Amino acid sequence: MKSENSISKLIKGYKPGYSLEQAFYKNPDLYKKEIENIFHKHWILAGHISQIPEVGDFFLFEFANESIIVTRSKDGSIKALLNVCRHRGSRVCLEDKGNAKAFTCPYHAWSFDLDGKLIAARYMNDDFDKSENGLHRAHVELAGGLIFISLAEHPLSLSQMQDDLADVFDQFGFDNMKLAIQKTYPINANWKLANENYQECYHCAPSHKDFAKIHAMALNPAKFDQQKETFLKTSESNIRTKPSSFYFDLAKDGQEGYQYDRNPLIKGMMSGSKGGKPVAPLLGKLEKYECAASEFMVGPVTFFLIYDDHMLGYRFLPTSLDECICDLFWFVRGDAVEGKDYDLETLTWLWHETILDDEKIIIDNKKGVDSHFYKPGKLSDMEAMEQHFLDWYIKSIS
Amino acid sequence: MKSENSISKLIKGYKPGYSLEQAFYKNPDLYKKEIENIFHKHWILAGHISQIPEVGDFFLFEFANESIIVTRSKDGSIKALLNVCRHRGSRVCLEDKGNAKAFTCPYHAWSFDLDGKLIAARYMNDDFDKSENGLHRAHVELAGGLIFISLAEHPLSLSQMQDDLADVFDQFGFDNMKLAIQKTYPINANWKLANENYQECYHCAPSHKDFAKIHAMALNPAKFDQQKETFLKTSESNIRTKPSSFYFDLAKDGQEGYQYDRNPLIKGMMSGSKGGKPVAPLLGKLEKYECAASEFMVGPVTFFLIYDDHMLGYRFLPTSLDECICDLFWFVRGDAVEGKDYDLETLTWLWHETILDDEKIIIDNKKGVDSHFYKPGKLSDMEAMEQHFLDWYIKSIS
Amino acid sequence: MKSENSISKLIKGYKPGYSLEQAFYKNPDLYKKEIENIFHKHWILAGHISQIPEVGDFFLFEFANESIIVTRSKDGSIKALLNVCRHRGSRVCLEDKGNAKAFTCPYHAWSFDLDGKLIAARYMNDDFDKSENGLHRAHVELAGGLIFISLAEHPLSLSQMQDDLADVFDQFGFDNMKLAIQKTYPINANWKLANENYQECYHCAPSHKDFAKIHAMALNPAKFDQQKETFLKTSESNIRTKPSSFYFDLAKDGQEGYQYDRNPLIKGMMSGSKGGKPVAPLLGKLEKYECAASEFMVGPVTFFLIYDDHMLGYRFLPTSLDECICDLFWFVRGDAVEGKDYDLETLTWLWHETILDDEKIIIDNKKGVDSHFYKPGKLSDMEAMEQHFLDWYIKSIS
Repeated sequence: MKSENSISKLIKGYKPGYSLEQAFYKNPDLYKKEIENIFHKHWILAGHISQIPEVGDFFLFEFANESIIVTRSKDGSIKALLNVCRHRGSRVCLEDKGNAKAFTCPYHAWSFDLDGKLIAARYMNDDFDKSENGLHRAHVELAGGLIFISLAEHPLSLSQMQDDLADVFDQFGFDNMKLAIQKTYPINANWKLANENYQECYHCAPSHKDFAKIHAMALNPAKFDQQKETFLKTSESNIRTKPSSFYFDLAKDGQEGYQYDRNPLIKGMMSGSKGGKPVAPLLGKLEKYECAASEFMVGPVTFFLIYDDHMLGYRFLPTSLDECICDLFWFVRGDAVEGKDYDLETLTWLWHETILDDEKIIIDNKKGVDSHFYKPGKLSDMEAMEQHFLDWYIKSIS
Repeated sequence: MKSENSISKLIKGYKPGYSLEQAFYKNPDLYKKEIENIFHKHWILAGHISQIPEVGDFFLFEFANESIIVTRSKDGSIKALLNVCRHRGSRVCLEDKGNAKAFTCPYHAWSFDLDGKLIAARYMNDDFDKSENGLHRAHVELAGGLIFISLAEHPLSLSQMQDDLADVFDQFGFDNMKLAIQKTYPINANWKLANENYQECYHCAPSHKDFAKIHAMALNPAKFDQQKETFLKTSESNIRTKPSSFYFDLAKDGQEGYQYDRNPLIKGMMSGSKGGKPVAPLLGKLEKYECAASEFMVGPVTFFLIYDDHMLGYRFLPTSLDECICDLFWFVRGDAVEGKDYDLETLTWLWHETILDDEKIIIDNKKGVDSHFYKPGKLSDMEAMEQHFLDWYIKSIS
Repeated sequence: MKSENSISKLIKGYKPGYSLEQAFYKNPDLYKKEIENIFHKHWILAGHISQIPEVGDFFLFEFANESIIVTRSKDGSIKALLNVCRHRGSRVCLEDKGNAKAFTCPYHAWSFDLDGKLIAARYMNDDFDKSENGLHRAHVELAGGLIFISLAEHPLSLSQMQDDLADVFDQFGFDNMKLAIQKTYPINANWKLANENYQECYHCAPSHKDFAKIHAMALNPAKFDQQKETFLKTSESNIRTKPSSFYFDLAKDGQEGYQYDRNPLIKGMMSGSKGGKPVAPLLGKLEKYECAASEFMVGPVTFFLIYDDHMLGYRFLPTSLDECICDLFWFVRGDAVEGKDYDLETLTWLWHETILDDEKIIIDNKKGVDSHFYKPGKLSDMEAMEQHFLDWYIKSIS
């Protein structure tokens, strides 16, 4: 009761257009509510089909207290199995990735097939019903080769996004990408501070010198608007420039939120890399560098930035009230060969540096928000998307 | 109130024959209740008289927030003194073990004799009554040379166990054993997960390859029953084979729970060691290896496994809600000489390896139990003793 | 409600003349109240004017969740600015000390002048009022060159202390001192245990052998009283010997508590150093060593010990419920030259060793206080000041 009251009071005190009160980042009951209403409800990127090409291939997708086995089943479909034995709860699969015929719990050797069905439970009595003791399953949906997972009982629909963005997936060849490398960045701050940081480019110019040399959106608003106008007028490519703004509170009822947009890079910059130089073969149906990058977002914590020759995926996940992780995924064309067509160091340089900068920023933000003297501050127009995030967040926990 | 309600609700939801709900492992108020109703009430192994042969010899017994000085007093009796100065609460004794004439607090030099009596308090006023400011004392009982301690005001009786098992203590020569070595294994999981792990051998075959080569009880139930039957029929030894099953909820009113049983080893195995080979001189009145081992348990967290040539002691103690320790004691015949009659590496090999395996298992169990998707699972008949533990546990906290 | 009740109950159970119940050190709600009623209300030493001689010089003063920029403004006055950006709360200043023209937030580049005024906020709308978005300011008061800070809205008055001790500041030349070195000692215990330790010299003889060779107050009470009487009778110096006892609960209404006293050293000892040997030039107007030391205290957590040739400052601050820091400041005459007139190792030896001893004592005290069997114990007359501290503490949180 008391806790519910204090959360209601917090929510009532929220002022749109301002940053959140300190208590939103510190309340353990609110954190539980976020896990339930956000992370166990919305779609989250787990990975890409290229990571598990063969039957029995699997990898683990983990956050907060959850571990999910993402595996390719016998019929070739992708399954997501909760990594929690139905006997006494042990982790069933202890390897990060690999190939398995079945998943056998290391504790008492209960064994589950690739669909999660319990196929062996030693010496259990005859009245024990194996069919009711399979691993719990999460929902899986593929979007252009990307594997999304929802822990909800009745997940939101991805149909609008799938229909709307089919041409984008096609043009960039999502189905034929491969994961070049994935890196995990732990951040000692509440997940919202990390997510908010990603929502806005108001901080790009002061905080990310290298990023700001590449992306027009780091320019001052007037200059950016002008460059974008020119870009939209002159773009002759097949790649879609029309934005889809169904993110956060703008999502349609029953549909998962998503977003698409395409923005110019600074003149002469071809990719998100040192000096804007190419770093990998052109993606999908692209025939030349267009000095632009597309943004794409699905659900509240998964973002993509599509350069002409590679794609970044970003995923923000809580590990506890005060800690989160940012997972970065670098995708390249499926037939690109490491060491020949691309080099990991060159490919990952810009965003590895950028995310390390962000980590510092986010932790210094957390320190200040922890102060007794912190008060919600006025947000700028350049933080409009963050304002949508906060409005949506307040609804999500209400 | 709220917390009491949520604990009552948890208890009401308990289903005998199933593992516990997640909240039993995560609730800090429940943890306090466990400390009070279990660890401050039941008898716990502190050590063996051979550790403190001389007047003034002492060692510390520590768990959770408690530190207890176990010492031999002037009259030769064993005393257990709470290591908490009666002035401002400082630890009085900072050494793990040693010999002392008196215990003098390092803070303000208040001094206590071996019975805990305050014998000096510098410059205190005349109205200060030293006789009321001795160290708190815990109850001590010896059982065949083993030192048990109870922090209860009115401890449970050990009389039934003492009477019942007198012949066991005598045959194995408990009084004349000595502690060869003690090792502490910290485990990052709630103490119940560790204790439950020790209750059952359903996991022995899949988890403990080396243990399973020695102990018949790791076999499948039918095979074990058959081997046990043969063993009982053919055993010609003086060592008792008749079981005493007064463990957990089977304890008699007012008596501490305990258990005794004797089980065969795999044919040809003589001791709990690499290849089942002898590792020390035969205990007590034993004249030959009998390819068997006795189990013995006192209270809820102290267990013994008696091989013909050495005895293991196990003690599971909480350090916090999410952490516990398993202390292992290796006992050998009192006149055995290290380096000549036994070698520590050989003596400790099997159980050192086994407990390290268990640590991994227990932590992987904890990880799964922490999942939102964990549900209590059906226990097998091979987990019968764990079922008694859980039934008793529920009563203990009710 | 429940929490308020349990705090009231604790307070009601307090017995003057006894140490505190365990819960006073463990209750997180009480800790919040302490921060509010003590650390956000009373004056605390931040440093000395010699640390920031030039306009724009600054250093950070940090404790618990707060960071305060102490800087010299354009008009030469000292300002204390809360290091929390008024936009989204980021730390504005990340350097421990330095010189700045302005403080520019690293996140979105809002910029504040040396008085905390917001002077630039990129691309904010026209309706945004910069004048309402300056950094929060804490109150600053100088006392003989020492910088004190209060986070209170309406701070207590320091006027009584300033008037009363003006001659002391003058005689020891406080204005012309300089900070030789500052060291921070983290202590894993509640701040009160550290503060209580500093309140009394009952522990000096058993715990601090080296200190006890220097300070008469470590002697037994009768001997000390006798030496003090002799000292007061024979002292011919200008340095004040008359005590001012307005500490803790003895403070006058609306005034900050403070204390002054002068005590003899052991015969032949000239300074707080190895063997009592001189370690730096005589302070202020002193012309010879007087074998004495003055104590001076302002507010509840700042203490000074003035030897004839250097001054120690002590500051006890919480970092969390279970952790605190003790900051030690060594001051010498402003014109003393390191390496020539004093040597840091020699200067800091006694109190570096003493505080390390205290750290051990305090942690062993904490361990015992954490025991279920700890009870408040009777304090001695030698702990009279601690008794005042505890009486005041109880009032402060009531």
